[in-house]
Amino acid sequence: MAETINNDFIRQLSIDCVIFGYQEGQLHVLVSRLYTREVFYGLPGGFIRQSEGIDEAAHRILAGRTGLTDLYLEQFRVFGGMDRYNEAQVSRMLDADIEVPQARAWIRANREWLKDRFISIGYYALVDMRKVTPTKTDIDASMEWCALSELPPLILDHPKMVREALLTLRRQLDEHLIAFNLLPEKFTMTELRLLYESVYDRPFPRNNFQKKILDLNVLDRLEKQFTGATNRAPYLYRYRRDR
Amino acid sequence: MAETINNDFIRQLSIDCVIFGYQEGQLHVLVSRLYTREVFYGLPGGFIRQSEGIDEAAHRILAGRTGLTDLYLEQFRVFGGMDRYNEAQVSRMLDADIEVPQARAWIRANREWLKDRFISIGYYALVDMRKVTPTKTDIDASMEWCALSELPPLILDHPKMVREALLTLRRQLDEHLIAFNLLPEKFTMTELRLLYESVYDRPFPRNNFQKKILDLNVLDRLEKQFTGATNRAPYLYRYRRDR
Repeated sequence: MAETINNDFIRQLSIDCVIFGYQEGQLHVLVSRLYTREVFYGLPGGFIRQSEGIDEAAHRILAGRTGLTDLYLEQFRVFGGMDRYNEAQVSRMLDADIEVPQARAWIRANREWLKDRFISIGYYALVDMRKVTPTKTDIDASMEWCALSELPPLILDHPKMVREALLTLRRQLDEHLIAFNLLPEKFTMTELRLLYESVYDRPFPRNNFQKKILDLNVLDRLEKQFTGATNRAPYLYRYRRDR
Repeated sequence: MAETINNDFIRQLSIDCVIFGYQEGQLHVLVSRLYTREVFYGLPGGFIRQSEGIDEAAHRILAGRTGLTDLYLEQFRVFGGMDRYNEAQVSRMLDADIEVPQARAWIRANREWLKDRFISIGYYALVDMRKVTPTKTDIDASMEWCALSELPPLILDHPKMVREALLTLRRQLDEHLIAFNLLPEKFTMTELRLLYESVYDRPFPRNNFQKKILDLNVLDRLEKQFTGATNRAPYLYRYRRDR
């Protein structure tokens, strides 16, 4: 009899992995094809044991697919909108004509558990492709590298997961201006600088800071702040909402 | 009879919120004190209904505590290590001498559900403190702003949640060099630039890129790559692991 998941794992919570590799000028992603006659491609994923942490679970899942136990791995986002729960597609996958007896038996044994609404923790990994041996599990027909520009259609919200993982990768090298949410609509450069100093817990030299911020081209300069001593009045700024 | 949580909500999954405000040069965080004679401080949090997305749930939870329905809100990390499941402390909280009858009844009615292992999705919010009316729920004795430098001891892994939320806030303005995980240990500047171009899907002018990367001071320059034509051989670089 096929093994059931049931109480060994946390219900309604899964992990999906975007595994990035780089080769010949192109980013690649590791993609699984499910063992059904209808073609379903998806990201490698799995579930979390009651007795393991989520990072452990992700490492276990990735090790099973790549052979690597020591790799750069980060959670990047949780996918938990109601729109990801595509009941019709899940049913079609679970009821698909599954070629291999042990895969068929496993899906049948766990059908009720698998068809529930799932919230999925997205992990992304960066790997040296030459060190990876793509490895399929019982329910995968294949596990292969696909160039990001040539990904097949993926199930559920997996295309969004790939996009978000890529955005995360980009954000590592970029700035995201959100400090303005902590300030009144109009603020002086000094107020902004003090906010930065408070957030970063270090001083920002006044002139450098002003130049750096203005060079970002995200502020509108408004009227001078009324202080009584007009010759020393600082300008007010506003974050440009269209940026 | 007190309302039970049970099947209306997803089991073993919670949301905890780090709500940042800024005032008089200091970051503040909204903190709840639980309605027990023993003093427990924690971040405002809650659970996810079967019928709502996780962002919806976070907005609902935050609206209940701040009165704000439209605020800057982002998930920043999932906390799901086994070390966060402090069974002794959870039991102490659930069995505490709870002052208010309706809070006591609610905890009793949901004790079995609440004492399970939870994985928690951390959200952080940035708000204008002057727009917020801190609002307590039935089980809170108080809901108050605390300066980040004067936070009381918080329950479970909530101090870590605050630290991580702060790091996230900082990272928005900083660079995180991880692209090197996609390359062999030694690489040329051109290889690195092409990797950047692939990740960002845009060209990086050669000289600017080289200057920008070298100014970061994170690379060791090694020997020249052997190509046969020694006068045109490019240098190899290695990411400085101590950075």
